[in-house]
Amino acid sequence: MSQPISVTVWNENRHEKHNPKVAEIYPEGIHHAIGAPLADAYRIQYATLDMPEHGLTEQVLQDTDVLIWWGHMAHQEVSEDIVERVYQRVMHGMGLIVLHSGHFSKIFKKLMGTSCDLKWREANDKERLWVVSPGHPIAEGLGEYFELPEEEMYGEHFDIPAPDELVFVSWFTGGEVFRSGCCYQRGMGKVFYFRPGHETYPTYHDSNVQRVIRNAVEWTKPVQRPYPSYGNAKPLEPLPQQ
Amino acid sequence: MSQPISVTVWNENRHEKHNPKVAEIYPEGIHHAIGAPLADAYRIQYATLDMPEHGLTEQVLQDTDVLIWWGHMAHQEVSEDIVERVYQRVMHGMGLIVLHSGHFSKIFKKLMGTSCDLKWREANDKERLWVVSPGHPIAEGLGEYFELPEEEMYGEHFDIPAPDELVFVSWFTGGEVFRSGCCYQRGMGKVFYFRPGHETYPTYHDSNVQRVIRNAVEWTKPVQRPYPSYGNAKPLEPLPQQ
Amino acid sequence: MSQPISVTVWNENRHEKHNPKVAEIYPEGIHHAIGAPLADAYRIQYATLDMPEHGLTEQVLQDTDVLIWWGHMAHQEVSEDIVERVYQRVMHGMGLIVLHSGHFSKIFKKLMGTSCDLKWREANDKERLWVVSPGHPIAEGLGEYFELPEEEMYGEHFDIPAPDELVFVSWFTGGEVFRSGCCYQRGMGKVFYFRPGHETYPTYHDSNVQRVIRNAVEWTKPVQRPYPSYGNAKPLEPLPQQ
Amino acid sequence: MSQPISVTVWNENRHEKHNPKVAEIYPEGIHHAIGAPLADAYRIQYATLDMPEHGLTEQVLQDTDVLIWWGHMAHQEVSEDIVERVYQRVMHGMGLIVLHSGHFSKIFKKLMGTSCDLKWREANDKERLWVVSPGHPIAEGLGEYFELPEEEMYGEHFDIPAPDELVFVSWFTGGEVFRSGCCYQRGMGKVFYFRPGHETYPTYHDSNVQRVIRNAVEWTKPVQRPYPSYGNAKPLEPLPQQ
Repeated sequence: MSQPISVTVWNENRHEKHNPKVAEIYPEGIHHAIGAPLADAYRIQYATLDMPEHGLTEQVLQDTDVLIWWGHMAHQEVSEDIVERVYQRVMHGMGLIVLHSGHFSKIFKKLMGTSCDLKWREANDKERLWVVSPGHPIAEGLGEYFELPEEEMYGEHFDIPAPDELVFVSWFTGGEVFRSGCCYQRGMGKVFYFRPGHETYPTYHDSNVQRVIRNAVEWTKPVQRPYPSYGNAKPLEPLPQQ
Repeated sequence: MSQPISVTVWNENRHEKHNPKVAEIYPEGIHHAIGAPLADAYRIQYATLDMPEHGLTEQVLQDTDVLIWWGHMAHQEVSEDIVERVYQRVMHGMGLIVLHSGHFSKIFKKLMGTSCDLKWREANDKERLWVVSPGHPIAEGLGEYFELPEEEMYGEHFDIPAPDELVFVSWFTGGEVFRSGCCYQRGMGKVFYFRPGHETYPTYHDSNVQRVIRNAVEWTKPVQRPYPSYGNAKPLEPLPQQ
Repeated sequence: MSQPISVTVWNENRHEKHNPKVAEIYPEGIHHAIGAPLADAYRIQYATLDMPEHGLTEQVLQDTDVLIWWGHMAHQEVSEDIVERVYQRVMHGMGLIVLHSGHFSKIFKKLMGTSCDLKWREANDKERLWVVSPGHPIAEGLGEYFELPEEEMYGEHFDIPAPDELVFVSWFTGGEVFRSGCCYQRGMGKVFYFRPGHETYPTYHDSNVQRVIRNAVEWTKPVQRPYPSYGNAKPLEPLPQQ
Repeated sequence: MSQPISVTVWNENRHEKHNPKVAEIYPEGIHHAIGAPLADAYRIQYATLDMPEHGLTEQVLQDTDVLIWWGHMAHQEVSEDIVERVYQRVMHGMGLIVLHSGHFSKIFKKLMGTSCDLKWREANDKERLWVVSPGHPIAEGLGEYFELPEEEMYGEHFDIPAPDELVFVSWFTGGEVFRSGCCYQRGMGKVFYFRPGHETYPTYHDSNVQRVIRNAVEWTKPVQRPYPSYGNAKPLEPLPQQ
């Protein structure tokens, strides 16, 4: 492939505006913290909720190989039309990486077909992410586990379909576990859910987290082949005469 | 379990009214042909599109362990409210068996998160269903394969998530294959998609087809345990003092 | 099925003879602690390493629907012939429940095709088993999690194939997680691996553990259908004339 | 990765010597037909049964990222030591592509844990391979299906563990279907089984078959990360004082 992969980072971008603590950690917004470490190898676009069409115009999405999604407090403000547009692009092969509180985004719930609910706690849990699929490309370059000294806790049961491939399982101080790295194929698209990233912690500055996201871009990028044909089909072999 | 399992058979029940050929094969409607062979062991209720609330009142669904769904030409007439009600029951453990053209029903598409599209042909293909999971409970009592001398063809690509368990793969005369028996877990519910059953063929009078549906009722029936708790959660282990 | 399911509990039965602490917890051997709570509903046979043919004669195995396996210090003393005999029975449909240190048994490694290695620690970890598949029959009757106040720790990476279905994930005090309830289909047989059960703790007297084993007997029991035919096959449809 | 991927093609290389028809189709042996189309992008080594250590010395395997395996009539002549050596390399990350009659090779059976048996027929069936996982990297560049005008038939039931990912399903003229492209992770290694390739047909000269093998090399290549540590493990978090 001669063209670099095109990655669009979508961010709700609200906490950054209202919460000084978040603004201090992510002065340019979470989206820039996610996108910057990818910029050496990928074309990066940014889109946020308050842009026209949430920044996800037909043209932007057509020019997107992998879409990264961060949202939390304003899931309901995302328009159904844009959700449908993103969904159609996933069906046609666009990769989608859903981060942290994006578990409750409209697009993730639509793709999963379940409530996507979970347990949560904002306290001072440590999170330790264990690699349970040691040969998976999304684990490339990682050790056996990595730690985030403070994170929001997400606990089971996580109401998702059983992942096609499970890459990470998290341990939390408070006694919970969580399926933290979950791979899915939906239509021609690949979807990766990755748990960490609460807005009040510097999670997206962590080098292991950055490595996972980079690996996930490679794993979710589209394959080059035509979209399947559906509908009425002539036989490929002769049928008995009627 | 002392109570018999309660099975509700839902049918669109339109072809039977408009097409004499269908009415001849299924004089009491497809739903009765599906339900009658189960009546020795299960409590059977029937519900159809034109009943109030499509026959799927809150009370009926609360009293349903396994819902069987046949629809085709009137998917769009099924109200969103009833779809949501069925969906909530699946999340809470009700089994769902989706038959044939039900692949395009609102409830199946909502649970799958994909287009559920496929290739099709009404001609005179033979269908041969091969068992690819020989120890699966849904294959109990079946031979290595069974045949339907004439059926509508459904061909790949079938746009579904990869099944949690794949039980049958169909061969068609015209040169196509199809994943014909697909198991899913969604929320606390189990979902089984089973391909055969075009309205102009006597498919639901076939003893192998009847056996598969019976096995699927057993496989999809709910487990008895409380619904998970979601939301804010107190730690189960002491956290470090802040 | 009119006949009760036949369950054979196999135990190495060595720790009980050499370690007074184990003998105190399991005075009749671990096998009896496992089998006794099943005796109300199943026919129970016991077999141990030091019996002729390890108690697993051709006749005993032919009369076994589900085999439960506990072994630890003497895996190497299990003869290859008996392993092959058990393996053939699994291929033909016998259920197999492998407990705890049985992860390193010859039969489990042969069925998995991987090293089945893991991390371990004998200390005073608490184990909390979370249900991650809430509608799975093996979770019937359980709460969201259950605890074992003291158990040996097993930690990831657990070198197994990705389970067909993952039912439990364990949390340990020392910071590890583990895939603790793993379902597989192999040939016509179903295999369930269940983690808890170190010999120096009263784990098999725990009612949740007993419930899981009982559920697993139900899940692994054979289906009734003929073994597939393999080898040279005549065409079922006419081939072109040559 | 600056170094090109290293691919070793292993061939039994017996049919070529004894059957003039095979020698005519593959004058340099099946291994060269498989390796030549990869030589533009990969370092290719060849190894055959009759070489010392079957050509798979410790050094050759250490220098192999992906091993391709073709064998048929002489599976029993492959030494257990070499099988163990290949197995250890797969556990440590080496990719393995098993072709056609390699389903009965010692290494494939050891990795699967099942009989790997199937139905077969040497006649004049046509094979049509349908893509059932349209976004999978192994389907890159392919149409909805591709055909092989004449091939040996392999039919279900194919006695393998359910694949982690199923990419192709084959249709055969004589009425059978087959899971033809099967992905597995075993240890740190990735394994791909690909059905076509009977020695009396020019299958490995087919451009679609060549494309699949090339894609499979990319999919099975190792990830770069340390092998997990197993065995006794110190706690990562403080345990209660005893």
